[in-house]
Amino acid sequence: MDLTTPLILVNLKTYSESMGEKAVKLAKIAEEVTRETGICVALAPQFSDIHRVASASEVPIFAQHVDPVTPGRGTGSILVEAVVEAGAVGTLLNHSERQLGLALIEASLARAKEVELKVCICSNNQAVSGAAAALGPDFIAVEPPELIGTGIPVSKTQPEVVTATVETIQNINPVVIPLCGAGISTGEDVAAALKLGTQGVLLASGVTKAKDPKKILLDMATHAK
Amino acid sequence: MDLTTPLILVNLKTYSESMGEKAVKLAKIAEEVTRETGICVALAPQFSDIHRVASASEVPIFAQHVDPVTPGRGTGSILVEAVVEAGAVGTLLNHSERQLGLALIEASLARAKEVELKVCICSNNQAVSGAAAALGPDFIAVEPPELIGTGIPVSKTQPEVVTATVETIQNINPVVIPLCGAGISTGEDVAAALKLGTQGVLLASGVTKAKDPKKILLDMATHAK
Amino acid sequence: MDLTTPLILVNLKTYSESMGEKAVKLAKIAEEVTRETGICVALAPQFSDIHRVASASEVPIFAQHVDPVTPGRGTGSILVEAVVEAGAVGTLLNHSERQLGLALIEASLARAKEVELKVCICSNNQAVSGAAAALGPDFIAVEPPELIGTGIPVSKTQPEVVTATVETIQNINPVVIPLCGAGISTGEDVAAALKLGTQGVLLASGVTKAKDPKKILLDMATHAK
Amino acid sequence: MDLTTPLILVNLKTYSESMGEKAVKLAKIAEEVTRETGICVALAPQFSDIHRVASASEVPIFAQHVDPVTPGRGTGSILVEAVVEAGAVGTLLNHSERQLGLALIEASLARAKEVELKVCICSNNQAVSGAAAALGPDFIAVEPPELIGTGIPVSKTQPEVVTATVETIQNINPVVIPLCGAGISTGEDVAAALKLGTQGVLLASGVTKAKDPKKILLDMATHAK
Repeated sequence: MDLTTPLILVNLKTYSESMGEKAVKLAKIAEEVTRETGICVALAPQFSDIHRVASASEVPIFAQHVDPVTPGRGTGSILVEAVVEAGAVGTLLNHSERQLGLALIEASLARAKEVELKVCICSNNQAVSGAAAALGPDFIAVEPPELIGTGIPVSKTQPEVVTATVETIQNINPVVIPLCGAGISTGEDVAAALKLGTQGVLLASGVTKAKDPKKILLDMATHAK
Repeated sequence: MDLTTPLILVNLKTYSESMGEKAVKLAKIAEEVTRETGICVALAPQFSDIHRVASASEVPIFAQHVDPVTPGRGTGSILVEAVVEAGAVGTLLNHSERQLGLALIEASLARAKEVELKVCICSNNQAVSGAAAALGPDFIAVEPPELIGTGIPVSKTQPEVVTATVETIQNINPVVIPLCGAGISTGEDVAAALKLGTQGVLLASGVTKAKDPKKILLDMATHAK
Repeated sequence: MDLTTPLILVNLKTYSESMGEKAVKLAKIAEEVTRETGICVALAPQFSDIHRVASASEVPIFAQHVDPVTPGRGTGSILVEAVVEAGAVGTLLNHSERQLGLALIEASLARAKEVELKVCICSNNQAVSGAAAALGPDFIAVEPPELIGTGIPVSKTQPEVVTATVETIQNINPVVIPLCGAGISTGEDVAAALKLGTQGVLLASGVTKAKDPKKILLDMATHAK
Repeated sequence: MDLTTPLILVNLKTYSESMGEKAVKLAKIAEEVTRETGICVALAPQFSDIHRVASASEVPIFAQHVDPVTPGRGTGSILVEAVVEAGAVGTLLNHSERQLGLALIEASLARAKEVELKVCICSNNQAVSGAAAALGPDFIAVEPPELIGTGIPVSKTQPEVVTATVETIQNINPVVIPLCGAGISTGEDVAAALKLGTQGVLLASGVTKAKDPKKILLDMATHAK
């Protein structure tokens, strides 16, 4: 399945509800939702689940992080070639739970481009989004850290943050696709995010901890049309 | 296969020669060597290869690193439950290419114990080995960083470093198993390491970049008897 | 004034109440308390205040941190020679607000010894204290992070943590001097800490934010006799 | 003395040749050069030397780094209020020897603006310079890390890097002042840097390790006119 917009990108983090076989199950649900709605649902599982999930489903898979290392040394590092070989088509970078040095972001992005891995840089505010845009990633997801995991959607409570961020990104680098993160948990939140100029959402617990993830994802995909 | 001593622990790092299907192939070779010699050969592949390698072979698998996070948040982190679920029985910690804060090592070790994941703390010298021993890991691998990847075995060029480290570890915590790292590339190096009081070796390029890994591993296992 | 035990070591952190001229004033108060009671009160001001405070008073001065760099490169790093030249006689290392890699602690300690700078490693629990003891610093201050800044003294609420830590330190390295940190704010807290086998206290807000620091310090010093 | 352009900004790093009283002496030399030529020479001494140097001379003083902490906790951190109180008017940020997370750079810059501390973000290449420009610092110094400390001036060997970086900065944020770093050691290097569109230089060993720093600084200042 192609990585298209509007995009619903689900970060599985380290939730036990979305690990191992449960990640595979969630991927199959995501696949169904995409088939039924035509809206792209992508997943970012843990590193150790990438190959398993990518082998069992056709949804686009993101790594949660990559390092700027080249093959060889780098014990414990995430090599871009390895995540591509395991089946990923993209990666998050600089998530608020895995913040990176500015020069490391630039170097990791350059490595990712070498292997045609799409990159979504996460940013915590408008200024950081502008800096990220200057680096030329494929996506930027703005997520005010204080809203992550709260279920309080930035698209509703701080719409001006989203609008200003989208504008900053477009001024600096109009090919970068803005996503809206932090607190997204319903189809309405997704619709609000798209109205503010973003082309998708990055979310986590809203789906991973849902009793019925398919219902939530269908609601989101329907509102994204 | 059980994790026994003397132990030959092969760190696959991010070598392209030991990634993906090549990691699986190497695991099968390791399995053969263990069957033929009775000496335990364990592998530490990249995170994204753990499940694939563990599914395809019976050799003990180590992660290259884990984080002290609990399930939930921690995007891009290595959860101990995830590496266990993928099939690992142990993990490296504090490799010289992935150095960790003292308190993080202690916390990661505590997390690993919760899920019965064996831990090999890597240390760069005698003093650090003593500190690591006080934390109570299963293994400590001493690797003078300047020798890593050189093919110059610490067991031959700095035998006194190995001897002193083994003694320090035993004084502080006699149940910890000392391993010898850095520059190990032949059966003779392994024999020298064991004579100095270690109970195994941690190595990487000596096997991963070898033209005939089976020949090298057989040589090492034979010398470890 | 000599650095003696029992020791009252006051970490000025980045409190505005103990910065610049206010740090000098506090040092003069500490000096008076030492003269009047014979108990050593030492201060750990911000780096930019070390020279000023050391020039204006005779109390022993600690840096709050040092890096393992040697003279030369290392922009923004804290060189041990620089803090000694500015007038410090000791340094904190690995404070919970400035945690360090295990190998960096060992390397920084080695650098400090080269210039005869006393080192107090901060630790968050018993296990980490044991590891720190193996490295051979002059002091170890145990501070459960959850109590730092609370005014809830570890010596009262978790006396068993302090006792066990003192024992661990003595078993591994009996020349290391244990200090008690976290939540110390009264003379009684100091007395309790000493009864548990420590030879002094590391504290911060209890003094820096006190209305009458001299009164508090006198109370502490009196209880330390 | 005012902080004006063209600017010669000398990073004293942790060189023993420019520490303590030697930093004061260098500041007096810088002061003389400014008086004689009208060209601003600013110094970035070690933290523990800021107050001493600022008290003894009138040259603009930069810190080598600041942290985004607010007054209070933050043991071992560099508080912007503290460096201002000690006499600094500016700070380096993200030097290649002290690289910072993207979000930390943005937060530190915001803190610096609160206390009117000028900020010079260091960058290692054109892309990172663009990202830095989006954050809105006062200065950006581009320094290819492989040339730092070599005496091989980027302005001569990679003039196209400097030109492209200046252009990128101006496109994204024209009020940011570009400086040229890495390998600057003569007046000619300074002249070359200014011709390429920068408004000054950031250098270190070229002055700190010079036998006759005044002669070098005079040569640089003369070529900067």
